Amino acid sequence: LHERNDPFGGSSSLPTSLSVDGDSLQRQIDELSTFSDTPAPSVTRILYSDKDVLARRYIKNLMGLSGLSVREDAVGNIFGRWDGYEPGLPAVATGSHIDAIPYSGKYDGVVGVLGAIEALNVLKRSGFRPKRSLEVILFTSEEPTRFGISCLGSRLLAGSKVLAEALKKTTVDGQNISFVDAARYAGYMKGEDDLSNVFLNSGNYSAFLELHIEQGPILEAEGLSIGIVTAIAAPASIKVDFEGNGGHAGAALMPNRNDAGLAAAELALAVEKHVLDSGSIDTVGTVGILELHPGAINSIPSKSHLEIDTRDIDEKRRNEVIEKIHQSAVAIAKKRSVSLTEFRIVNQDPPALSDKSIVKAMEDTSKELNLPHKLMISRAYHDSLFMARISPMGMLFIPCFKGYSHKPEEYAASQDIANGVKVLALTLAKLSLD
Amino acid sequence: LHERNDPFGGSSSLPTSLSVDGDSLQRQIDELSTFSDTPAPSVTRILYSDKDVLARRYIKNLMGLSGLSVREDAVGNIFGRWDGYEPGLPAVATGSHIDAIPYSGKYDGVVGVLGAIEALNVLKRSGFRPKRSLEVILFTSEEPTRFGISCLGSRLLAGSKVLAEALKKTTVDGQNISFVDAARYAGYMKGEDDLSNVFLNSGNYSAFLELHIEQGPILEAEGLSIGIVTAIAAPASIKVDFEGNGGHAGAALMPNRNDAGLAAAELALAVEKHVLDSGSIDTVGTVGILELHPGAINSIPSKSHLEIDTRDIDEKRRNEVIEKIHQSAVAIAKKRSVSLTEFRIVNQDPPALSDKSIVKAMEDTSKELNLPHKLMISRAYHDSLFMARISPMGMLFIPCFKGYSHKPEEYAASQDIANGVKVLALTLAKLSLD
Ligand SMILES: [Mn+2]
Ligand SMILES: [Mn+2]
Ligand SMILES: [Mn+2]
Ligand SMILES: [Mn+2]
Repeated sequence: LHERNDPFGGSSSLPTSLSVDGDSLQRQIDELSTFSDTPAPSVTRILYSDKDVLARRYIKNLMGLSGLSVREDAVGNIFGRWDGYEPGLPAVATGSHIDAIPYSGKYDGVVGVLGAIEALNVLKRSGFRPKRSLEVILFTSEEPTRFGISCLGSRLLAGSKVLAEALKKTTVDGQNISFVDAARYAGYMKGEDDLSNVFLNSGNYSAFLELHIEQGPILEAEGLSIGIVTAIAAPASIKVDFEGNGGHAGAALMPNRNDAGLAAAELALAVEKHVLDSGSIDTVGTVGILELHPGAINSIPSKSHLEIDTRDIDEKRRNEVIEKIHQSAVAIAKKRSVSLTEFRIVNQDPPALSDKSIVKAMEDTSKELNLPHKLMISRAYHDSLFMARISPMGMLFIPCFKGYSHKPEEYAASQDIANGVKVLALTLAKLSLD
Repeated sequence: LHERNDPFGGSSSLPTSLSVDGDSLQRQIDELSTFSDTPAPSVTRILYSDKDVLARRYIKNLMGLSGLSVREDAVGNIFGRWDGYEPGLPAVATGSHIDAIPYSGKYDGVVGVLGAIEALNVLKRSGFRPKRSLEVILFTSEEPTRFGISCLGSRLLAGSKVLAEALKKTTVDGQNISFVDAARYAGYMKGEDDLSNVFLNSGNYSAFLELHIEQGPILEAEGLSIGIVTAIAAPASIKVDFEGNGGHAGAALMPNRNDAGLAAAELALAVEKHVLDSGSIDTVGTVGILELHPGAINSIPSKSHLEIDTRDIDEKRRNEVIEKIHQSAVAIAKKRSVSLTEFRIVNQDPPALSDKSIVKAMEDTSKELNLPHKLMISRAYHDSLFMARISPMGMLFIPCFKGYSHKPEEYAASQDIANGVKVLALTLAKLSLD
């Protein structure tokens, strides 16, 4: 255990007992879930929507009640800061997201925001005095629902000039509302000409941690309380459009057709095939969106639109799968005499490695707290993937029911959440005193 | 040529010259196309919508201006009658539809309504006096867009008790609006307890004729002006739902998935395969609707919905295809561990044969008017399919551009429309004097 000279008195050693207010935390999780566009038990909360604005207000209020000083950047990343007694040093940050894809659950991202605030509460209750400031981050949007851009907030914090340009100039949602207009509707981007003031410098933080549900079945199945992430898989997404001549479902003879819907059906199955052929269980691929136009029973589809998600811990292998999907799209278009009017790789990101000393701090903390744990990779991407570009990074998983996520059945037990908060709190404390 | 004693004076012989007001007819077609939910050049006009109500008003006005007495039945079939001098005899009817599937064209159905009114104008201009009354019918809805029920109006006229029950009690549209509420919104079903008063008796009409664009490429390709339909192919439609567990696109491993979207993709391709394997070019099949839930890029589809259209001139062969599609749906569900939560045959109708003497009358008329013509089958279904159950039936086709239909490119030349109107007029005159 560390001891430091604290010029302000009080204890600047690590807390000896951690007390999580589990009931309060559960109530907050339940309350936040009510800011939803779809009825319980599902949650739908889309970037810059009315429900998103209400939820942000809820979080900012909690941050204030915890004595954190709150600031927001131009796109709505929200920061709650607990100043340390050496406030000039790079801070230690922790956070996650609260946006929720359509018909998802209450815990994804939320555990790492409400849990992060509670972790700071735990430290305050124990009398802990941080050396490095501690900061909770609510990333403005992690899910790609509205603009097709995953981890929008953290990509910007990590300094993506390409994204900043696109957001200012070309990005629109499915209703053709521009990113700028949407952000302004929610109270952001006021007179902002330049998004580069959202960028953070490498070195802004000495460490970034994220607490998150596992979204997989391993911890629960193995009876473990904590998963310490060593690497985050490399995500990618692709948008595809096919176009044909359409026509009358009864009158157009089969040899004369070029059905864009059947082209899409073939491509969806090709995605599955290439993923399964990779030779590794770590390769995944999904067609989550497939839409036909005009979408009438007696009208041969003249257009089809697919959105493909594919990921792997091995970036090269994932890129080979993307290339095969592309080749399939071209071949299918040719075979079916449709046009491949769009094949756009929206994002194709490298994986990220956790910082070894942070991993060790989490392992030590788990042992000290007698919480059974293991090292593991994160198959899902998280804001941590992008924070890793500007800061040493670590992620903590807690078990969730059968690994379910992105559906209303998503569930994490209070006790597991509390354990995660404790490990987060103690690890933050160690990193703060470092 | 016939001569009959007309007690009222005037000519009850067949007209010797027919004059179609082609410009006026084209203007009416163009005007009617403006009552649309989607912008030109497409037309979308859905049963009982505001645009449908406006279009009906337009037609009723034209009927009145033509001196026809107008009546509407409880569901909105509209009748414009020209009384003959033996009004007690079964009348001769002609008509079609004006509803239009999403993003379709201006001619489908419309030619047979505006053209029918103009055919009666042609006869009036020529001094013709009908013996049997002549009646123009606007069938309330031929397209299945709103309620999934094709030829709703003519099915009822033909006396479908099952349909009448369903419409009164269970039929709802995609927004869960009941058929009764929708009809009332448009001014129909006022205090109607019983739809059986919509039923017509066999014998109500001595003949029913329908003028329609071919919706196929043959007449144009062969340089013919008139197609005389000998039979209408047997239509069927099927609704299918699959359900799986959904889940997280990044975190759920491939072997653990039961993706309802991929089940749908497989079934769509199976439909094509069974249709192509029938051994006949007359078998067609289409998946015009395929929808995924929840429809987010990073969410494995937990539900999929398909709507399948399949038809054949050979009813038995078509039924075999339906059976194979069903077997495929069951096999796919099993293989992919999803549930086949719905496999519903919405309709499965027999084909219809045209009346031989009507066919002959049309052939004779075409020859008399020096219009090159041929006998052919109708691959698309029409209200004639159901009117054939209660009346001798005949259909007239005119060429349309490249056979395009159910898309905005649908086009029929004024001259071809005028030719069709002439053949219709003269055939109606013959049948009226019969
Ligand atoms: Mn998520
Ligand atoms: Mn998340
Ligand atoms: Mn049609
Ligand atoms: Mn039609």
